[in-house]
Amino acid sequence: MKVAVDAMGGDYPLNNIEGAIKSLEDPEIEIFLVGEPEKLTSNLKDFSYDKNRLQIIPSDEAIRMDEQPGIAIKRRPNCSINVCSGLVKKGMIDGYVSAGNSGATFASSAGILGMFEGLAKPCVGGAVFGFAPKTLVLDLGLNVESTPEQMLDFAALGVSQAKILYDVKNPTVGLLSNGSEPNKGNKLVKESFKLFEKSSINFHGNIEGHDIALGKVNVVVCDGFTGNILLKAIEGFGHVIYQFLKKEITDSKSSEKINLIPKKTNIMREFGGGPVFGVNGIAIVAHGSSSPTAISNGISTVSWLTKKDYVNQSIKELSSIRSSING
Amino acid sequence: MKVAVDAMGGDYPLNNIEGAIKSLEDPEIEIFLVGEPEKLTSNLKDFSYDKNRLQIIPSDEAIRMDEQPGIAIKRRPNCSINVCSGLVKKGMIDGYVSAGNSGATFASSAGILGMFEGLAKPCVGGAVFGFAPKTLVLDLGLNVESTPEQMLDFAALGVSQAKILYDVKNPTVGLLSNGSEPNKGNKLVKESFKLFEKSSINFHGNIEGHDIALGKVNVVVCDGFTGNILLKAIEGFGHVIYQFLKKEITDSKSSEKINLIPKKTNIMREFGGGPVFGVNGIAIVAHGSSSPTAISNGISTVSWLTKKDYVNQSIKELSSIRSSING
Repeated sequence: MKVAVDAMGGDYPLNNIEGAIKSLEDPEIEIFLVGEPEKLTSNLKDFSYDKNRLQIIPSDEAIRMDEQPGIAIKRRPNCSINVCSGLVKKGMIDGYVSAGNSGATFASSAGILGMFEGLAKPCVGGAVFGFAPKTLVLDLGLNVESTPEQMLDFAALGVSQAKILYDVKNPTVGLLSNGSEPNKGNKLVKESFKLFEKSSINFHGNIEGHDIALGKVNVVVCDGFTGNILLKAIEGFGHVIYQFLKKEITDSKSSEKINLIPKKTNIMREFGGGPVFGVNGIAIVAHGSSSPTAISNGISTVSWLTKKDYVNQSIKELSSIRSSING
Repeated sequence: MKVAVDAMGGDYPLNNIEGAIKSLEDPEIEIFLVGEPEKLTSNLKDFSYDKNRLQIIPSDEAIRMDEQPGIAIKRRPNCSINVCSGLVKKGMIDGYVSAGNSGATFASSAGILGMFEGLAKPCVGGAVFGFAPKTLVLDLGLNVESTPEQMLDFAALGVSQAKILYDVKNPTVGLLSNGSEPNKGNKLVKESFKLFEKSSINFHGNIEGHDIALGKVNVVVCDGFTGNILLKAIEGFGHVIYQFLKKEITDSKSSEKINLIPKKTNIMREFGGGPVFGVNGIAIVAHGSSSPTAISNGISTVSWLTKKDYVNQSIKELSSIRSSING
């Protein structure tokens, strides 16, 4: 299993190195560290690792967090994220992990690998609440304005994720709305509702805010604006509840349970990210402040997705759901 | 202080009676129980109370939860909520509390009392997270589709609430968005941003989901669709976190702290509701399942708002903020 790491991306470049080396504990893994060779050589010098399974792939520097991703990846064709995407495109690796500028990962993977046929833009999603781990929400922020057709794409991409990654047989889909009745919702939700009804998805109608935590459906569909606010809101609520309880309850047995709250409410940080949905290859967007464990988990995710034939299965799912509304 | 109670509204009509009687502990309070006289007399017979300070005002039955509010209040002019609104209109009472169909309370109060000049529709808002008690979010669901002008109205109504009810001197206002940068947001947020910048509000720009829990601003403005999802989402997350901790941590001292979580994450239920924003009178929308304490708290809220000259102060605030963008 060949996995590249955008080795200079993210807030803590050394965590990329440490995470990559940690991932070599899995004998199947072979690592391609992408970045400026001199810096990488210097960063690697204090680590011991199996040199047969870790190589440096030279690139220019990574896209910085303050750069405009769409512009930067075109201006700097040899930046680290483009080299990662190119390695996938050439079939040299199975996928990559980047903790760098997430917009650049989306733009580079979409531009170089291409998107699934007919898809307007990739999307991003996943579980947002660790106590409802099989409830995926998407889009989580990439598509601030969405169309009903895009909402159906989010549903299809979510269904394929739930099937492939969570082994759910016939994933249920809900539209996030301001009430459960079919007539509830803003214009986008009302139009999407009609489209969803016509499609072959296992549509459970509108769901409400509290249904996410209760895990009422496997795939929660919303526009990226709503999803992004929701994702960050739960991080904030979890953080404040945790801070309160940590101060008030200090015995070690209880603390162990209380320490689960940030893990369950900030799972983007916990799991180190997820794949870009809808591009022809495996690109894992990791949190900028990913720990070595998060990077290593991201590498394992590439391996897992590859074994599940994730990209091809997703393409099939999208195509099947789309043809159900046109047929 | 004269307060009416929509005595047959809500899931538990007896709670209205019990809450009303409880409120008589405040010697200033005088109660008008609005409903079908026979039913109310029967419901009252087991209670002892000061008969000089509690009277029955006859009406037809309350609007049921399954009725279309806008239609029902017109078809049944003598329903309990209309009688309540009429008592305010005639100056016979200072305000009222209803745990009945909330749509009917909005429609009846807006129709009979009238809205603030130029306001398209009333709105609803309040704190959504007890650990950030001075951070109000509005709209919370009444205006599923909102315009930039309405968003500015929400800001003005929120500012007046923060000033009048929470004694905040110069309340800060934030637009809920998918990023803190000025260029972030959907179309509505981007247009609202420009309007907010031109206005006299103490505008802190875009805020993100996590900023609500952190209490970054006093007034968080969003469309009713987003606000409603957020309000219910935090109820759901709070509920699930509470259930988890309650099962895992059982010592009595810790339990006391853990029991605060549902109170802090479902404050609509806890506080029994809030006033309709933007109507010419005090109408408190209480939760359908309000406890006697919630009803009694609602009655106290009427008293408190009256003393603060809430309606007139809100009208002034709205007018001042509006003229700042036109001037």
